[in-house]
Amino acid sequence: MSALPELDEEMEQGLLESGGTGGGPTPAVRRARAWLSRVAEPGSIPFWRFVEDTGPVEAVRRLRSGRAPDAVRSLGGARVDQDATAADLLRAQRCGARLVVPEDDEWPGLLLHALTVATSEEPDDARHQSPRTTAPVPPMALWVRGQARLDELVDRSVAIVGSRASTAYGEHVAGELGHQLGERGWTVVSGGAFGVDAAAHRGAMAAGAPTIAVLACGIDRVYPAAHGALFHRITEDGLLVSEWPPGAAPHRHRFLVRNRLIAGLTRGTVVVEAAARSGAQATARRADRLGRPVMVVPGPVTSATSVGCHELLRDIELGAVLVADAGHVIEAVGRLGEDLADRPPRPTDARDGLSDVAVRVLDACPVRAGVSPERLAAVAGCDVLDVLRVLPALELADLVEWTGTGWRLARPEQRGAR
Amino acid sequence: MSALPELDEEMEQGLLESGGTGGGPTPAVRRARAWLSRVAEPGSIPFWRFVEDTGPVEAVRRLRSGRAPDAVRSLGGARVDQDATAADLLRAQRCGARLVVPEDDEWPGLLLHALTVATSEEPDDARHQSPRTTAPVPPMALWVRGQARLDELVDRSVAIVGSRASTAYGEHVAGELGHQLGERGWTVVSGGAFGVDAAAHRGAMAAGAPTIAVLACGIDRVYPAAHGALFHRITEDGLLVSEWPPGAAPHRHRFLVRNRLIAGLTRGTVVVEAAARSGAQATARRADRLGRPVMVVPGPVTSATSVGCHELLRDIELGAVLVADAGHVIEAVGRLGEDLADRPPRPTDARDGLSDVAVRVLDACPVRAGVSPERLAAVAGCDVLDVLRVLPALELADLVEWTGTGWRLARPEQRGAR
Repeated sequence: MSALPELDEEMEQGLLESGGTGGGPTPAVRRARAWLSRVAEPGSIPFWRFVEDTGPVEAVRRLRSGRAPDAVRSLGGARVDQDATAADLLRAQRCGARLVVPEDDEWPGLLLHALTVATSEEPDDARHQSPRTTAPVPPMALWVRGQARLDELVDRSVAIVGSRASTAYGEHVAGELGHQLGERGWTVVSGGAFGVDAAAHRGAMAAGAPTIAVLACGIDRVYPAAHGALFHRITEDGLLVSEWPPGAAPHRHRFLVRNRLIAGLTRGTVVVEAAARSGAQATARRADRLGRPVMVVPGPVTSATSVGCHELLRDIELGAVLVADAGHVIEAVGRLGEDLADRPPRPTDARDGLSDVAVRVLDACPVRAGVSPERLAAVAGCDVLDVLRVLPALELADLVEWTGTGWRLARPEQRGAR
Repeated sequence: MSALPELDEEMEQGLLESGGTGGGPTPAVRRARAWLSRVAEPGSIPFWRFVEDTGPVEAVRRLRSGRAPDAVRSLGGARVDQDATAADLLRAQRCGARLVVPEDDEWPGLLLHALTVATSEEPDDARHQSPRTTAPVPPMALWVRGQARLDELVDRSVAIVGSRASTAYGEHVAGELGHQLGERGWTVVSGGAFGVDAAAHRGAMAAGAPTIAVLACGIDRVYPAAHGALFHRITEDGLLVSEWPPGAAPHRHRFLVRNRLIAGLTRGTVVVEAAARSGAQATARRADRLGRPVMVVPGPVTSATSVGCHELLRDIELGAVLVADAGHVIEAVGRLGEDLADRPPRPTDARDGLSDVAVRVLDACPVRAGVSPERLAAVAGCDVLDVLRVLPALELADLVEWTGTGWRLARPEQRGAR
């Protein structure tokens, strides 16, 4: 397959076309971004800035013809001389996937704009820039598998992330959150991994809601291998999304780079279970840097898989919010005034609203044999007149009763919450 | 027992004495405060201000002779005409207790000063003052049972409070916290109740440390009845403390009033398990009002007994700190620079500190058959020169090895935390 001349020809041709017909990107732009998505690892600030400044087609031409700055060209390394775009696009098509580029209507530009802003704040000197694994760089393009529109699904979306080595507790909570958020029209975004991620995806799907798995490998690969059925179900209503081209392997460093996308594509990030040093914590900090709410589900302090959650909640600078249910999550990410968490249910108590004297008289009342108001006054430490004044109200509230010879509690009351 | 004339006579006599001999309170002052501790329920702002303004002996004289303001006199009600001080003091003595008054050296004035300040901020108009159950009023006197000095024990003290209907988790954590704090020289203060309170007391004693139970009844009563042995053990090195005179019954409203004392006598309050509407939450809010740190142990969000804890942690105005161990507690309450929590143990990783290119090359290395630097460059997406530059460092760190024909990972590495 000698695609090289074709690519370069199409780029030349692409420069002559301006915007195409329907307002969408030209085939040359899409092909340019397909090539760029393979040539350099995502997350590089100089590379992204170069493409942003020159445009994708011109960027490809300069890289291919040796006219790109050395610092940019070296990021592509040996890949610059190769071209797998035709194969990549075909491979995507065969598995029901497509390449979504920033020039598409479907591009979730509103949410991803936070990444652009954060990248613009990075210094010019590459030595002082954030390292690639934590840099807030927007994706070059997104390989998307599934029928749904990406921009529509992420408009009301929440990331649920957490430990792969989760406990039954973490999976239960992630599943419940996913389910409740799905029921209330929110898209759950996660990483498709074992444990918390899978539980969150499954919870959302059990509510009949679409969910998005943002992968650190090609959208035609199944990693972890046991998630073939899960990924298949996700694509029915939801999406698999990746920055890497089809076939890309799930290298470990890619997960770190991927995490910024989970944070960037959502209105807020919920961490369910996280060990002391975990990717979920990293995702949470990335969300915070993008100005998105960081929400954390606590757990038993005796559980190692909650240590990372508690660290996040103890970090004053982070300002993470503790969440215990989907209501709390929606309150944190919902638009102002639109979504408010239900008040926690509180047991009511007939004692509420009683005056101080009434409470004392009530506590002075015996359970069985009735006693005189004088006796109540002595025990409660108040005047007999006070006792006579509060007794009718206590009787009306069914708290005390007249036995014929004296006053006593109306029923053997449980000594409840103090 | 006709103690009335004796009390009034002693008050008359007490006015003539000034300060006594050894700097401590005169017998008249102690007896006056014994009487005042029974005549009105603790927590009343007008009553406390009246005693503060006139002095305890003169306050008793005015109340007994009908010269106190009606609003103050009515707080005593029928009790004003009675005197049980001789019996109360005898009863205390018989069970190894004593009355500690603000005029004593042993009075924990430094810590309780926060209550005085908070009361001084209450408005003059009684209708706008905090109700008695939440008013931050200092105690009139403290009935104390045990050998230890009260002021010494509370100098470095932490309150541990929580649900009586605790779970095994809550009791485990309370016991651990009590034990660890006891070991590190901190006095655990709690309410002597079932559940979290008892576990905290027991944990402290298991570390050989004194502990204090602040009761809502007389120090000679055992409530709950099953805690006879626990209270007896507490008095061996620690103390039982109460504002109420001997024999006083554990009326329900007294627990609410008592809670301010647990907050006031300690440098901070830890809530271990608390239901949605609980006394532990009230104690925490009282601690906050006194400017003392509020610390909260989280739990599973699926546990009803942790709902109150999570509510406290979600309350932004409260500013409660999540704590997972005694180190966190001591960091919050300890004096600046004196006590700092240990950093949480973090797993170290040979990957830490590797450059971006080195991480990519490492991820590109196969597990079994060695490959050429050119192949590594292609997979990692960088120049061959980069690969050759980072390989020595990776080899030195025992991450990769030369097979004789190519490079591979040095050992089958677990794909661990991302």
